[in-house]
Amino acid sequence: MEHEATRITGTDLDPEAAFQRRLGAVVQAVEERIAALLDDAPRRGEIARPARLVAAMRHAMLGGGKRLRPFLVIETAALFGVPFAHALNGACALELVHGYSLVHDDLPAMDDDDLRRGRPTVHKAFDEATAILAGDALLTLAFDVAADESSHTDPAVRAAFVQGLARAAGLGGMVGGQMIDLAAEGRYGDVLLDEARVRRLQAMKTGALIAFAVDAGALLGRAPLGDRQALGAYGRAVGAAFQIADDILDRESSAAAMGKRTDKDAGKGKATLVGVLGLERARRERDTLVEAAIAALASFGAKADILRSAARFTASRQS
Amino acid sequence: MEHEATRITGTDLDPEAAFQRRLGAVVQAVEERIAALLDDAPRRGEIARPARLVAAMRHAMLGGGKRLRPFLVIETAALFGVPFAHALNGACALELVHGYSLVHDDLPAMDDDDLRRGRPTVHKAFDEATAILAGDALLTLAFDVAADESSHTDPAVRAAFVQGLARAAGLGGMVGGQMIDLAAEGRYGDVLLDEARVRRLQAMKTGALIAFAVDAGALLGRAPLGDRQALGAYGRAVGAAFQIADDILDRESSAAAMGKRTDKDAGKGKATLVGVLGLERARRERDTLVEAAIAALASFGAKADILRSAARFTASRQS
Repeated sequence: MEHEATRITGTDLDPEAAFQRRLGAVVQAVEERIAALLDDAPRRGEIARPARLVAAMRHAMLGGGKRLRPFLVIETAALFGVPFAHALNGACALELVHGYSLVHDDLPAMDDDDLRRGRPTVHKAFDEATAILAGDALLTLAFDVAADESSHTDPAVRAAFVQGLARAAGLGGMVGGQMIDLAAEGRYGDVLLDEARVRRLQAMKTGALIAFAVDAGALLGRAPLGDRQALGAYGRAVGAAFQIADDILDRESSAAAMGKRTDKDAGKGKATLVGVLGLERARRERDTLVEAAIAALASFGAKADILRSAARFTASRQS
Repeated sequence: MEHEATRITGTDLDPEAAFQRRLGAVVQAVEERIAALLDDAPRRGEIARPARLVAAMRHAMLGGGKRLRPFLVIETAALFGVPFAHALNGACALELVHGYSLVHDDLPAMDDDDLRRGRPTVHKAFDEATAILAGDALLTLAFDVAADESSHTDPAVRAAFVQGLARAAGLGGMVGGQMIDLAAEGRYGDVLLDEARVRRLQAMKTGALIAFAVDAGALLGRAPLGDRQALGAYGRAVGAAFQIADDILDRESSAAAMGKRTDKDAGKGKATLVGVLGLERARRERDTLVEAAIAALASFGAKADILRSAARFTASRQS
């Protein structure tokens, strides 16, 4: 605990302050760009934008969210001299994918959640059919945005971005992870949830898109192969640390809420590393992952301080 | 009627036979390529492919479908000398989008259909959550495939393909059309379904992706602007004719099934041009659209005979 407190509020306050300032800038810029993308005006190749669908998409995307994935895209690209404004479009493509996944995950047939970030979920604020379509349209828009000329001047980079995003988000990544997660609830019969399977599930469900956020920044910045590999290690570690930190928070808050729930009970039916490893080992693994993420950035020197802070931030609170 | 019979079985039998042969070749090649895309092996950038999700995606995509959209991509590209094998990948991207849209449209919250092509729909054969995820994964895979190097050697063409596909399929195209169609059922209050609105709905819901199939072929073939515009007129007319023909078939088959249903009753609650125009005017419009589609191909001469046959075929049966 002292270790963590030192890292967050200790002697290196300046990098943390810089981090918070830049995260705030990303939050604002992403909000504005996505609001502009989701207006009523049909773009070239579109016929009309139905008001109800646009409203549901805006409800899903605006007014909340830590914007961690866009932040990682923008700050990784910045390592290679890509201006903020040039990386913003690609960054928003990832946030649209993240947003669609929340809309569909909240559906009654999935996690059946009524609230997200303190507001009604899309199928509650609108209806289930509208939520399905809003998710579909957000996912589709993500690829429109990724392929757009404003994402990068080189079409080869845009095509690689689209394909990388699709693979991180699709059947071998995020969607596949969600499928395994539903199976882990026992919906389709008993499943053995050993540590290796839980790790793979988490790497797919949340890790893949976070890792791709870092890789997307490297793509936009035309990073040399060695740098891209180092950033790959960073991205995977941050993605894993993020998920463990989230699960630890879940456990701590549900334990607090229940007053007497034990670690073992609280983890039931959820395929988390906290459930597999227990709270203490999970905390140690989270800290080890943050250190590994930071170590992977060694060759970048001080210019990667923001990404180091991001690794610490990711692991220290819910994002 | 005599007019139509002449066109389909009359003196130009050879083009029709050629059309059927080539459509059969597309059906087989699309089936094989999509089966290969949907195997269990994770691709570069993927972690693992869950068996249940792959099975649901295969259920949705294989063993049926007229493959009209891939056919239009391949035959339009062929006008500009693009070999069949080179256009196949892009063609499959459109079919994946079409397939995902059927999976989501069949969901209980949407059209709530238990059967498609005589087989259980995905949410019946699997479950609702799996159907949502399978649709999401098919849509995502479509963009992976469109962006892949095997779709075109020039990344600028691939990026334009991705963006065109996204705009035809997204909030200003197919998904938007589905949203308006649900509203047209009266789910969200009374709506005025005048002719102009029904036309726009149909242009979005089915017309946009069919029109993009033709445009995609022009993109892959680097068609000159004039040719691309002519093909645009062809694609829009074919898309509209397809939907009217489908609605006429629906009306005729439901009238036959009900024995005594009138034209007016059978169209209730469905926003179709048959409902707005009546059966006879709809038939005339369908025929006019086929003639317009064929007329738009004038500058291509005999090499567009296959596309002329496609226009007639589209309007003559359910695809």
